[in-house]
Amino acid sequence: MEYLLTYDVDTTTTEGQRRLRRVAKICEGYGIRVQKSVFEVTCTTAQMPSLRQQLADVIDHTLDNIRLYRLATGTLQTVDRLGVAQLAPHHGDHIV
Amino acid sequence: MEYLLTYDVDTTTTEGQRRLRRVAKICEGYGIRVQKSVFEVTCTTAQMPSLRQQLADVIDHTLDNIRLYRLATGTLQTVDRLGVAQLAPHHGDHIV
Repeated sequence: MEYLLTYDVDTTTTEGQRRLRRVAKICEGYGIRVQKSVFEVTCTTAQMPSLRQQLADVIDHTLDNIRLYRLATGTLQTVDRLGVAQLAPHHGDHIV
Repeated sequence: MEYLLTYDVDTTTTEGQRRLRRVAKICEGYGIRVQKSVFEVTCTTAQMPSLRQQLADVIDHTLDNIRLYRLATGTLQTVDRLGVAQLAPHHGDHIV
């Protein structure tokens, strides 16, 4: 399954900066970072609840903002790009 | 057509900060901002080349990074969200 995960974490406090690092670290276990706050995720349907729960445990639900877009298979290999954007080297499910 | 547009614009210079504002302004004409660097875009296939060209005219192709993900119809109304993320109020094509 392909997903696009985007986040805005409020970093106006030290605690927020810590949350941002933790969110990024979690995402790194499930996908490839393609922009500062954008990860391309490939995982199975069964693995998605684990990713979601880890994020829910870390964020401040009154300040932070995470969106998870389900993509059609193949979208990550055909994404339209401008500037320095590159295709990410996905090879099946990315759980590490 | 539904798209997700994400960008990283290099803002280490005044010129970069200007590009960032211009990119955001262009995107506002085609979609709804849902995060700092993420827009949900609804437009026709015919309108997409215009959006793409406007962005290409503005960015620094050696520094900035724009990605345009094609989404299946209905994705924007079913996006999974955590924290303060809300569904955006799309009503068909958004060109203003």
